[in-house]
Amino acid sequence: MSGNKAVAYKGPGVVEVIDVDYPTFELKDGPGVNPANVGRKVPHGVILRTVATNICGSDQHMVRGRTTAPTDLVLGHEITGEVVEVGSDVEFIKVGDICSVPFNISCGRCRNCKERKTGICLNVNPDRPGSAYGYVDMGGWVGGQAEYVLVPYADWNLLKFPDRDQALEKMLDLTMLSDIFPTGFHGAVTAGVTVGSTVYIAGAGPVGLAAATSAHLLGAAVVIVGDMNADRLAQARTFGCETIDLSQGDPGSQIEQLLGIPEVDCAVDAVGFEAKGHGHGAGEAPATVLNSLMDITAAGGAMGIPGLYVTGDPGGIDAAAQKGALSLSLGTGWAKSLSFTTGQCPVMKYNRGLMMAILHDKVSIAKNVNAKAISLLDAPRGYAEFDAGAATKYVLNPNGYLN
Amino acid sequence: MSGNKAVAYKGPGVVEVIDVDYPTFELKDGPGVNPANVGRKVPHGVILRTVATNICGSDQHMVRGRTTAPTDLVLGHEITGEVVEVGSDVEFIKVGDICSVPFNISCGRCRNCKERKTGICLNVNPDRPGSAYGYVDMGGWVGGQAEYVLVPYADWNLLKFPDRDQALEKMLDLTMLSDIFPTGFHGAVTAGVTVGSTVYIAGAGPVGLAAATSAHLLGAAVVIVGDMNADRLAQARTFGCETIDLSQGDPGSQIEQLLGIPEVDCAVDAVGFEAKGHGHGAGEAPATVLNSLMDITAAGGAMGIPGLYVTGDPGGIDAAAQKGALSLSLGTGWAKSLSFTTGQCPVMKYNRGLMMAILHDKVSIAKNVNAKAISLLDAPRGYAEFDAGAATKYVLNPNGYLN
Amino acid sequence: MSGNKAVAYKGPGVVEVIDVDYPTFELKDGPGVNPANVGRKVPHGVILRTVATNICGSDQHMVRGRTTAPTDLVLGHEITGEVVEVGSDVEFIKVGDICSVPFNISCGRCRNCKERKTGICLNVNPDRPGSAYGYVDMGGWVGGQAEYVLVPYADWNLLKFPDRDQALEKMLDLTMLSDIFPTGFHGAVTAGVTVGSTVYIAGAGPVGLAAATSAHLLGAAVVIVGDMNADRLAQARTFGCETIDLSQGDPGSQIEQLLGIPEVDCAVDAVGFEAKGHGHGAGEAPATVLNSLMDITAAGGAMGIPGLYVTGDPGGIDAAAQKGALSLSLGTGWAKSLSFTTGQCPVMKYNRGLMMAILHDKVSIAKNVNAKAISLLDAPRGYAEFDAGAATKYVLNPNGYLN
Amino acid sequence: MSGNKAVAYKGPGVVEVIDVDYPTFELKDGPGVNPANVGRKVPHGVILRTVATNICGSDQHMVRGRTTAPTDLVLGHEITGEVVEVGSDVEFIKVGDICSVPFNISCGRCRNCKERKTGICLNVNPDRPGSAYGYVDMGGWVGGQAEYVLVPYADWNLLKFPDRDQALEKMLDLTMLSDIFPTGFHGAVTAGVTVGSTVYIAGAGPVGLAAATSAHLLGAAVVIVGDMNADRLAQARTFGCETIDLSQGDPGSQIEQLLGIPEVDCAVDAVGFEAKGHGHGAGEAPATVLNSLMDITAAGGAMGIPGLYVTGDPGGIDAAAQKGALSLSLGTGWAKSLSFTTGQCPVMKYNRGLMMAILHDKVSIAKNVNAKAISLLDAPRGYAEFDAGAATKYVLNPNGYLN
Repeated sequence: MSGNKAVAYKGPGVVEVIDVDYPTFELKDGPGVNPANVGRKVPHGVILRTVATNICGSDQHMVRGRTTAPTDLVLGHEITGEVVEVGSDVEFIKVGDICSVPFNISCGRCRNCKERKTGICLNVNPDRPGSAYGYVDMGGWVGGQAEYVLVPYADWNLLKFPDRDQALEKMLDLTMLSDIFPTGFHGAVTAGVTVGSTVYIAGAGPVGLAAATSAHLLGAAVVIVGDMNADRLAQARTFGCETIDLSQGDPGSQIEQLLGIPEVDCAVDAVGFEAKGHGHGAGEAPATVLNSLMDITAAGGAMGIPGLYVTGDPGGIDAAAQKGALSLSLGTGWAKSLSFTTGQCPVMKYNRGLMMAILHDKVSIAKNVNAKAISLLDAPRGYAEFDAGAATKYVLNPNGYLN
Repeated sequence: MSGNKAVAYKGPGVVEVIDVDYPTFELKDGPGVNPANVGRKVPHGVILRTVATNICGSDQHMVRGRTTAPTDLVLGHEITGEVVEVGSDVEFIKVGDICSVPFNISCGRCRNCKERKTGICLNVNPDRPGSAYGYVDMGGWVGGQAEYVLVPYADWNLLKFPDRDQALEKMLDLTMLSDIFPTGFHGAVTAGVTVGSTVYIAGAGPVGLAAATSAHLLGAAVVIVGDMNADRLAQARTFGCETIDLSQGDPGSQIEQLLGIPEVDCAVDAVGFEAKGHGHGAGEAPATVLNSLMDITAAGGAMGIPGLYVTGDPGGIDAAAQKGALSLSLGTGWAKSLSFTTGQCPVMKYNRGLMMAILHDKVSIAKNVNAKAISLLDAPRGYAEFDAGAATKYVLNPNGYLN
Repeated sequence: MSGNKAVAYKGPGVVEVIDVDYPTFELKDGPGVNPANVGRKVPHGVILRTVATNICGSDQHMVRGRTTAPTDLVLGHEITGEVVEVGSDVEFIKVGDICSVPFNISCGRCRNCKERKTGICLNVNPDRPGSAYGYVDMGGWVGGQAEYVLVPYADWNLLKFPDRDQALEKMLDLTMLSDIFPTGFHGAVTAGVTVGSTVYIAGAGPVGLAAATSAHLLGAAVVIVGDMNADRLAQARTFGCETIDLSQGDPGSQIEQLLGIPEVDCAVDAVGFEAKGHGHGAGEAPATVLNSLMDITAAGGAMGIPGLYVTGDPGGIDAAAQKGALSLSLGTGWAKSLSFTTGQCPVMKYNRGLMMAILHDKVSIAKNVNAKAISLLDAPRGYAEFDAGAATKYVLNPNGYLN
Repeated sequence: MSGNKAVAYKGPGVVEVIDVDYPTFELKDGPGVNPANVGRKVPHGVILRTVATNICGSDQHMVRGRTTAPTDLVLGHEITGEVVEVGSDVEFIKVGDICSVPFNISCGRCRNCKERKTGICLNVNPDRPGSAYGYVDMGGWVGGQAEYVLVPYADWNLLKFPDRDQALEKMLDLTMLSDIFPTGFHGAVTAGVTVGSTVYIAGAGPVGLAAATSAHLLGAAVVIVGDMNADRLAQARTFGCETIDLSQGDPGSQIEQLLGIPEVDCAVDAVGFEAKGHGHGAGEAPATVLNSLMDITAAGGAMGIPGLYVTGDPGGIDAAAQKGALSLSLGTGWAKSLSFTTGQCPVMKYNRGLMMAILHDKVSIAKNVNAKAISLLDAPRGYAEFDAGAATKYVLNPNGYLN
C-alpha cells in the first residue's frame, strides 16, 4: 500500500501538499467528515490512482476563507483516474479502467438519482441533498487533489473511457468532464441555447469559457462573454466568442453594438455570489450579475445559473449578503416572462455525450479553457495564479500520467 | 349602432359605470392609449357583444391606486363574447360565434407569437413585449368590462366554442378561459405538477383556486392551499384541497403535519408583490411568498410564479419595494437546484384543452372558484366585495346572456 | 428455509403449480436460463415473500404456445412482495419492507438505466437489451407467480411503499404498479395524452383499461375504448369511458358518432400482434390495429404502442406474420405527420407518481380493471378464464396477505 | 404588370418553361387547383419576385410520372423572393423585403398552426391537412419556379431577412431555408440527435446532406451517410461525414467498422418510398430503408423520417406498393423501444434559428449540398442532371439576383 500526498486547505489563503492516509473502503473520520458518515462502509466503491485533477473556482471560495472549511480539508472534486482496487460490490468497473468522476457524488438508488437529479442525491450527505468530494458541508468525502482517492457507488458514478490509450492522449480535454464542461453545458442548456441562439455569458473564468464552448457546440449563432479580466476575454476570443469589457459598464450597450439590439436570447451566470459591480473599480456587489442578466435577456428568454449562490456568507459585504439575501429586481424578469434554473449541474446527464464529442474531435475544451498541467507539488502556485486571475485552467498531475 | 356602458377607473378606490364610445375598427385616442397606437387600424378585428367579463385580482392593483392608471381607463381583460361585426380581414371567425378572448393580446405574426409566447407579443404594445385589454401601460387596448369590445387579430386570438347552446349553458365555467383558468394552469405546469405530485399553492384567491383546480386536473396526489382568509380556505376545501392558515405562521410545519415532511414537489405563487408576511397581523412584505416557497419546495422542484411582480410600485412599503427590488434568499433555492418561471400566462397554449375539459365535464372551475354573475351596474359592489376578501369570483353580465 | 410453490408453463394451453427451489442469491441453471447467466451472483438482490402477483396478457402469448418458452418455465413478472432476506450489497432496502417490483429487470449501472430507459437495460439479458421475470428469451430470471422470488439490484429496482399497513390495505391497487398501470400510462403518455385530449384505446383487456384509467388521470376530455368483447367494454363504461364495439366494423364511424369527427388526438395500441380483424367473425390479422389507428388519429397526433410486436411468431397466420413482418400503410401516417412510440414501458419512470396517486385516492385502478384475488393454486383456472375473455384482472395471493 | 415565365410539368420525364399569368391576390382556376380553392381571395398575400427557387427531390416524384400531377402544373415549392406587392391585409411585411417562403403553406389561424404544426394546416388544402406550392393534391397553390409567385398569409408565413445586402450575398445558403435545410434538420431533431450522438443518414441527396449538416450543427459526434451514388458520398465526405456504400450491402457491418458496434443512436430516412434494395444492382424495394434503420438503430433510439411515404403509388412495384402498403418488421423496432416521427417538416419551427446560424457563419449549407445556380431556362437540364444522380443542388435564378 502506497502513501498518499494531497492538497489541503490550511487556512485563509493557504493550501499545502500534505500526507494523508491511503483510502480504504470506508469513510473514516477526518477534517470535515460529517459525524453521521464516519465509519460508512463503501464496498460499492473503487480506489483510483489519480490521472488528472483540476483546481476549480469553487475551491477558491474555501481558500479565500469565505466558508467554514476546516483546516486540513483535502481539496479537489474534479477527478479522473485509473482504477486500482474495486470493492466487493462493484460489478462492471474493472481494475485498469480509466474513468471520469462526476464531482457530485450520488448513490444511484434514491428517488432523485432515479430521476437523473444526481446533484441532489438524498443518500450521500447527511446534511442536505447533494454532495461533492473535498468540499465543506458536503458530507466529508475526501478530496481528489491527491495521488489516490475513493469513489463510492462506482458502477453508477464512473464514466469509463472506451480506450485507454486514446483516453490518455486526450486527457487534458477529458479531465474537464468531471465538472466544468458539464457545468458550463448545463448553464447553456438551461439558458435555452439552441441552434441559432444569441447568448451572453457573464464571467470568463473556466466555467464561463466552458459555457461558451458549450453554446458553440449547441449551435449558437453568437456567443458573447463578459468579464473585467482582459486576459480571460482574450482567451474567449481565441475560439470565436465576442467579448465585452465590463469595466466599461453594463453589458447592454456593448451587446447592442454587436447585435443591433441590447438583448440576447439566452444568458448564463458563470460568476455567482462573489460578483463585483460593473464599471471601473467597482467593488463586490452580489446581485450585480443576476440583475444585469434580467436587463439584457430578451422577453421569453431563460437564464442558466451555474454560478454558486450560498445560504450564508461570513465574508459578505453587509448583513444582507452575510445571510445570503440578494436585492433582485424580479419585476424586470417577470415582465419579460423569464425563467431561471439554479443549482449544481447533474454531471451524469451530460458527461457521456460530451465525452463522445471530445473523442470524435468535435470540440476542443482544453484549448478553449487554456488547460495547463502542473505537478501536485505545484498546486499552491496554481491556486495563487488562478486566484490572481490567470486565464488558465490548472490541471494537477499527481502520478505523472500527463507527462 | 348602440351606445356602450363600461366600467372605468375613476381614482384610488373608485370604479364607476360610464358611457363610452361603441368600438370601431380603429384604436382611437383615449385614457391610457399609447400615442404610437392612436389611430391604429384594426381590419383584422371583430366587435364582440360581451357575454361575460370577470373582475380580476390584477384589476385591483390599479383600483387600489398602486399604479399610474389614468382616470376613465375602461377596465376588464377577462372577456367572452358574441361576434357582432367582423373586420374586412377576418376570414374564419363569423358573426354569431361565441368566443373566448385570451387576456393577452397578440398579433399572430411576430417571432414570439410564432413560438407560442403570446404573452410577450412584439407588435401590440409600443412600450414593451406583451399587452392586455384595459390595463395600464399595456398599449391602450380598451377594456372589456363593457357591453361591447374590440378584439384585434381575431382569427388568431379568438377561441370559438363549438356549439352556441352548450357554450351559453356552461358560460360560468367557460368565462374562466380568458384568464384565471389558464393562468392557474400555467402556474401548475411551470411548477412541474404531474401525476402524483405534492403541490403547495400560495394564495386562495381566484388564481390560486384555479391553480389548485389545475393541479388536481393534472393528476396531483395532494394539493395544499395557503392563505390567511378563512372563507377562501373553506372554498379550497370544497374541492379536495388541503389548506393551511398562514396567520398561524410559515407553511413548513403545517405541510409537515399533512405530508410527514415539510416540503412539496411543486409550488405556485398566486399572490405576487402585494404579499403580506406570515403570522397574525403581519404587514405587507413583498418577498414573503417567494422566500417561503424556496423554503418548502423540495430539492429538484420548481416554482411557477403567475403572481404579478412589478418594476416599480409607487405604493411600496419602502424605497426598495418602490423600485421593485426584493430581498431574496436565492442561495436557498440554489442549494436545492430549484427552477423558477415567471410572467403572464400565454393563454393560447392552454385554453383549447381546458375548454375541452370543461365541455366534457372533466372539471368544474366555476364551482371551484365560486363564480357569481352580477350585472354590469353592480360592478362597483363586486370590486368592493372582492377587495374585502370575498371568496367569490365576480362575473359581470352586461348583456343579460347569463340570466 | 421454506419450499416454494410456483406457477409453471407445462406446454401449450397448460399451466400447473409445481414445487421449485427456494431462491438464493445466485441465478442457478433451470428452464429458460440463459447459459451466460447461469451462476450469476446476486449479492445486490433481495428475496421477497410474494404479497401479490398478477396474471398478465403477455403471459398468455407463452401459454398459448406462440413462443419457444420451455416446459417448467416459472411464470410471472407482475410482483409485489415483502422483503425477507437482503443480499450483502443492499444498503437501503430492509427486511420487512413492502415493495413493488418493476417487471423490467434493470441494473441501474448501464448507460440505458442512467438515461431512465430501464426497459432496455444492457446488463441483465445476454441476448439483447431488456429483461423480465419469468419470460422466454429474457435472460432466465425466475418468475414471481410463486411464494418467493429473487429480485436483483434491489436498491435500484424496488419501489418501497411508505407505510406497511396502508400498503396492505390498498394492495389490489398497488399490485398494478408492477406492470399494467405504468404500461397503460406509458401508452397514454407516448400517445400525447394531456388535459383536454380525445383518446382512442384499442383493446379493453387489463392494459387497455389501465391506459384508459391513465388517460383520465392525465386529464383527457374523452376516452374511447374499442374491443369486440362485450364484458370488457361494459367494464370500461364503469369508469367513464365511451366504448366502441369493433365487431361492428372499423372504429372511424363510431368515433364520429361520439365526437362529431372520425378522429381523435391520441391513440393507444393495447392489443399487439395477436390482433384480429374488425367486423363480425374476423380472424387474426396482425396489422389491423396499427393500420386502423393511423386511420383514426388526427393529423399531428401520436400513437403509443405498448401492445407487443415480435420478431418471430411460430403461430403466425402466414409466412410474413411468422417472421414478424406487418403490411402497414405507413403513407397514411406520413401524410398526417404521425409519430409512433413502441416498446416495453420503463416502469421506474412512472411507478412512484402512480403510487402517490393511489395512496392519496386519486385513482381506483383495481376497480377499473376489476381486480380479483385468487389463490396460487387457482392460477390454472385464472389463466383459463382470462384467456376466455373474462373482464377480470387475476391477482394471485400466494401467501395469504390478501385475505 | 409583367409576364411570368415558369417551369411546368408536361408529362412523364418532361418539364418545360412556359408563360403563365402574373399572380394576383386571388387563387384562380388552373392545372391542379382544387375546385374549392378556385376564386379564393388572398388579401393577406404578397407577390414576390423570385430571388432563388430550387429543384427538389420531391418534384422528381411528379416528373417521373409517379403521381397524378396534371399537365402544365407549375412546379416549385422552394422559394425565396423580394416583395413587390402587398395585399391589403398585410401589416408587417413591406415591399422590398427579401424573404424566405416555407414550402408548407399555412394560415396562422387554425388549431394546428397555433400549435406550430404548420405542415398540417387545416385551412389551405380542401383535401386534407397540409399544403405546398406547385404540388399535386396540395390545394393548387401555384408553384414558385417562376419569375413571380403569390404567397398567402404573408405576415405569418414569411421569414424576413434582416439586411438586404447581407441576404443577397448569402443567398445560396439562405435559399435552403425554404425546405431542405429545415427538412433535414427536422429529420435529425426527431431522430434525437444531440451533442455526442452517433447518427446514420440513409440517402446522400440534398435532404440527406442537409440532415448530415444539421446533425453536425446539433453537435453529433459521428455522422455517417449511406447511399449507392459515389459522387454524393464523396460530397458527404467534404464536410466531415463518414460514408457507407450501400451497393456493398446492408449498412450494419460497415457501421461496425466505423464505430466498433453495428448500431447508431439516431437514424434518418432521407430516401422515402422510392427506395432501392441494398447490394449491387438491387431493384426498387420500398420498405428497405425503414427495415434497415430498425436493424441499425440501437435500443432506445429514434428514427426521423422526412423521406416521403405515400398513400398510393401508381408506379409501385407490386399491388401492395401501389396502395402504399409496406412490409415492415415492426417487432424489431418494438423489441428495441424505438420511436418514429413521420411527415412534412414544419418549416417555421426551425427556419429562423437556421437563418441565424447561416448569417453568423456557423454553417455552410450551400457548400455542403453543392448548390449551383442556373438560369430559369436551364431548369429542364437541371431536372435531368439531378434525376441522373448529380451531387448537386440546383438553384434557379429567374430574375438575375444570383449573378
